[in-house]
Amino acid sequence: MEVLIKYGTEEQKSEWLEPLLDGKIRSCFGMTEIAVASSDATNIESSITSCGDDYVLNGRKWWTSMSLHPNCELCIFMGKTDFSASRHLQQSMVLVPMKSPGLKIHRALTCYGNYDAPGGHAEVHFNDVRVPKENLLVGEGMGFAIAQVVAKIFFEIMKNKGRLGPGRIHHCMRLIGNCERSIELMKDRLRSRVAFGKKLSEQGVWKERVGLSRVETDQARLMTLLAAHKMDTVGAKVAAKEIAMIKIIAPNVAKTVVDRAIQAHGAAGMSSDFPLATFMTWARSLRLADGPDEVHVNSLAKLEMKN
Amino acid sequence: MEVLIKYGTEEQKSEWLEPLLDGKIRSCFGMTEIAVASSDATNIESSITSCGDDYVLNGRKWWTSMSLHPNCELCIFMGKTDFSASRHLQQSMVLVPMKSPGLKIHRALTCYGNYDAPGGHAEVHFNDVRVPKENLLVGEGMGFAIAQVVAKIFFEIMKNKGRLGPGRIHHCMRLIGNCERSIELMKDRLRSRVAFGKKLSEQGVWKERVGLSRVETDQARLMTLLAAHKMDTVGAKVAAKEIAMIKIIAPNVAKTVVDRAIQAHGAAGMSSDFPLATFMTWARSLRLADGPDEVHVNSLAKLEMKN
Amino acid sequence: MEVLIKYGTEEQKSEWLEPLLDGKIRSCFGMTEIAVASSDATNIESSITSCGDDYVLNGRKWWTSMSLHPNCELCIFMGKTDFSASRHLQQSMVLVPMKSPGLKIHRALTCYGNYDAPGGHAEVHFNDVRVPKENLLVGEGMGFAIAQVVAKIFFEIMKNKGRLGPGRIHHCMRLIGNCERSIELMKDRLRSRVAFGKKLSEQGVWKERVGLSRVETDQARLMTLLAAHKMDTVGAKVAAKEIAMIKIIAPNVAKTVVDRAIQAHGAAGMSSDFPLATFMTWARSLRLADGPDEVHVNSLAKLEMKN
Amino acid sequence: MEVLIKYGTEEQKSEWLEPLLDGKIRSCFGMTEIAVASSDATNIESSITSCGDDYVLNGRKWWTSMSLHPNCELCIFMGKTDFSASRHLQQSMVLVPMKSPGLKIHRALTCYGNYDAPGGHAEVHFNDVRVPKENLLVGEGMGFAIAQVVAKIFFEIMKNKGRLGPGRIHHCMRLIGNCERSIELMKDRLRSRVAFGKKLSEQGVWKERVGLSRVETDQARLMTLLAAHKMDTVGAKVAAKEIAMIKIIAPNVAKTVVDRAIQAHGAAGMSSDFPLATFMTWARSLRLADGPDEVHVNSLAKLEMKN
Repeated sequence: MEVLIKYGTEEQKSEWLEPLLDGKIRSCFGMTEIAVASSDATNIESSITSCGDDYVLNGRKWWTSMSLHPNCELCIFMGKTDFSASRHLQQSMVLVPMKSPGLKIHRALTCYGNYDAPGGHAEVHFNDVRVPKENLLVGEGMGFAIAQVVAKIFFEIMKNKGRLGPGRIHHCMRLIGNCERSIELMKDRLRSRVAFGKKLSEQGVWKERVGLSRVETDQARLMTLLAAHKMDTVGAKVAAKEIAMIKIIAPNVAKTVVDRAIQAHGAAGMSSDFPLATFMTWARSLRLADGPDEVHVNSLAKLEMKN
Repeated sequence: MEVLIKYGTEEQKSEWLEPLLDGKIRSCFGMTEIAVASSDATNIESSITSCGDDYVLNGRKWWTSMSLHPNCELCIFMGKTDFSASRHLQQSMVLVPMKSPGLKIHRALTCYGNYDAPGGHAEVHFNDVRVPKENLLVGEGMGFAIAQVVAKIFFEIMKNKGRLGPGRIHHCMRLIGNCERSIELMKDRLRSRVAFGKKLSEQGVWKERVGLSRVETDQARLMTLLAAHKMDTVGAKVAAKEIAMIKIIAPNVAKTVVDRAIQAHGAAGMSSDFPLATFMTWARSLRLADGPDEVHVNSLAKLEMKN
Repeated sequence: MEVLIKYGTEEQKSEWLEPLLDGKIRSCFGMTEIAVASSDATNIESSITSCGDDYVLNGRKWWTSMSLHPNCELCIFMGKTDFSASRHLQQSMVLVPMKSPGLKIHRALTCYGNYDAPGGHAEVHFNDVRVPKENLLVGEGMGFAIAQVVAKIFFEIMKNKGRLGPGRIHHCMRLIGNCERSIELMKDRLRSRVAFGKKLSEQGVWKERVGLSRVETDQARLMTLLAAHKMDTVGAKVAAKEIAMIKIIAPNVAKTVVDRAIQAHGAAGMSSDFPLATFMTWARSLRLADGPDEVHVNSLAKLEMKN
Repeated sequence: MEVLIKYGTEEQKSEWLEPLLDGKIRSCFGMTEIAVASSDATNIESSITSCGDDYVLNGRKWWTSMSLHPNCELCIFMGKTDFSASRHLQQSMVLVPMKSPGLKIHRALTCYGNYDAPGGHAEVHFNDVRVPKENLLVGEGMGFAIAQVVAKIFFEIMKNKGRLGPGRIHHCMRLIGNCERSIELMKDRLRSRVAFGKKLSEQGVWKERVGLSRVETDQARLMTLLAAHKMDTVGAKVAAKEIAMIKIIAPNVAKTVVDRAIQAHGAAGMSSDFPLATFMTWARSLRLADGPDEVHVNSLAKLEMKN
């Protein structure tokens, strides 16, 4: 949506942006590809070939969020118009109606065996999908630049609108909520179970785990509050270090705390009777989604080395 | 099956053991309960009430393996005949046809959202299930003792038959196989992916993870081989320490190694395109199945403190 | 000193408190003993035997801080006057001049091979040390109670005087300072060294370690600031949870961060050319001093389980 | 010594090798330098300047083992004869009598505050030290090659002489011995101490630590035995992977196990009353000595990626 607001022509806006803003349709973003390490956007291999008045698109995208939603009618497709241009000028973006011939939802993807609701993630194939050249955004070779600028705009909008902050902080807050819920469940369980003549809650190993879970969760919370506070007061750019830190901390702390709660529950902890298995899947996926740990640790180290 | 061989009357054997040995029917064991810490068998709360010539059974069992198999016709039910007897004489075992009125498969259980094949695990409810008193095994109050003896017989059989050893070692071997496969997949992935201008396989952080995965997997393998060797040559009892050790080591090493492989694969690692998510679920569940880590660490510490 | 202010008789005060307040003499506290787990004060085994108008003291104390200072003239000795009284009424405290016959500084103690400055820690032997009964504080059997009350007073004084807070928070602040200094030294080192054709600061493994060190240090700092803030505003009692948390966090984080810095420095990191080996010793000793980790994790778990 | 056997001229051998073999004198090797990362030998910065019939040596070496021994009379000095030659042809080795004018033992080095016995490690300064050109080994530019070849010879000798294997395996064996001794001491301590009404040996947290210490120590032992066995049977080259593995495992396992034993001993664990503080220093230094962890993890990863 942000892409269209900033870069759409009048025609593009009236066709797609208005129904999007009205909530009548949904859109998805075809970025991540199966065959390459997509955290580096220059790796993309899908092709956008010029053919008369049309572009012909080919490629296989996956983890395309919202693509399974029944109202999803638009895909913004990222591909290469010129494989021989300099590294950051090969990519372009085009608007693709979801009902275009050749565009096929190949399959829904699972994460640890589960499907996501409601929009889901899918693998989407583009086989000789043909769109008119008017569907190009800005110009050929502008794809990488648009992605970069939009990421920045996204931050600005979030900040100016007085919202709590971008998705990253939301994610971390949810993870901390998961930790708190896991600690509650763990305590209930430990208080109610007896093994070998003694309540689990009075056994040293479990006391240690409850104590450490509290320590780790509270530390993660403090850092998240600091990051949110800095984002609200001095902006996302200055808060870059704190944001990188919570993106690293929160999923890893959640994994540890939730895992202890699962162990306290025995087999029940892995079943769907408790939310713990879902929390675990969620925490694990956030070590990859929104940039893998490695990317954020790297950014953080760069900022730190500059000091 | 071992229970019937050792403790069944002639009538019980001809009715159940023969078709079991012929592979015509299957059986399940109703032991683990929802409401208590079942790694301590004295905690069991299901009841076996005497009523004329019958016993009336009540209780909720779960994680009952094989109970979902279409040929499963017999359940060995563990419950208490006398709640006021001394701690190890309260339990009894009775044979229950799966088609008895009041016995209901309540639901299949998931583990991280997945169902197991083929026999599955279910929650099984017993509401006033009535069986003739002839179905009792050995005698009232013998349930705990039978369980203990059978566990020992099981070890003996395994050893005398020249098999590799009991299930525990099999589990560990499978986990080490999972580690090896994960390392293979991780290496393939790292060799084929480039991020920020450099193959992942040449990046220091990934070299460290490959190296450590090799170290941890090989150590787990050596210990498993030692445990198997001792079981074959000096018996399960003398090998108790090594068996406890691999039961602790293997699932934890597998969790670590598989997790690194998942991280190397990005989102694909969590999808069903690779076996890694399944390996992870399997490794995690083996920190609980067959006795949780805590029980084995405890046994090991006791053996160690004796030296 | 606090003990004398609160519990000293007029005679005791004029003899010892005045020169102490004038800075003319120093005192030490003979509490910790060699043969027992002294984190539980009821374990103490030194004896205070009544003998006419005198008490006769016997016992071996160690880690007695300040006892090596040349001006140290007074020892407050904790021992048992009645081994058969109820657990918390066996202990008494008496004032002992350091020059009493039978009191001997047995030896200075090292910590990882180093002596502390300036007052040091010593092992002090008491062999039939005789002091007049007037030297008893408060009354027989009051030793445990005095220790408890003094600990509370100490907190009160600190708070009312507007000081930053008790020793525990000071310790944590120093440890965080050590972390910061270690990170600085590590960064300098990594920037200045080349191995295998590449600056260490550009190698992935070291970037990861710098990043994680920043994450862990900042988290420890935030929790310490919160604990200090709560102590200043709502008092040490309400802040008990946060104080327990930083007592656990800070020494362990410092150990980890300093250890990475040592590794970055090679053999130099362990030498006395850098402060890192000293930082490490200091961090390690604070996992024991002022209550070992285990005691604080336990308190924290109790507070958490109450919620 | 190996250097002289292989590369010494007849004159050099009669002057130095014979008294060395007779045990009359000792030698040291001036390799590691203060200012550079010496695990990469091409980094060396000491200079060997030609001046008529002599070489003039300048540089600062440290961690020079055996240099403090009263009988140490010879130093083999590694420096650069040609800073502009290709990377591996800049280095040369010369024989330097310890009593040469300009050669000065600058100071003994401490490791965590301790001095080593008997030969110790020192910082040795070379200020315009003059030796005749006959003292050159082999030829100018051969220094790097000699170091490489000698390392190999060293392995061969060890193997052919039927010795247990090179220093690396010895180190690991000693570390495992330290682990065993630490576990013994820990068990004794836990059995003899009571805190809060219960023997430490019966407290869950300590049982866990004893159990895990046994697991980790036994795994390290098995891998060390495998490495030694392979070295004896198929040679050091084929055993390279296992040797790298134990060099990584053993010091890290020892650090963990010894640290638990220290914690079990309280302050006593850090004092010189128990060998634990020394074990810790030793384990820590072996994460650096004989190649830091990072170098061995790297080699291991390379071998593993080749498979």
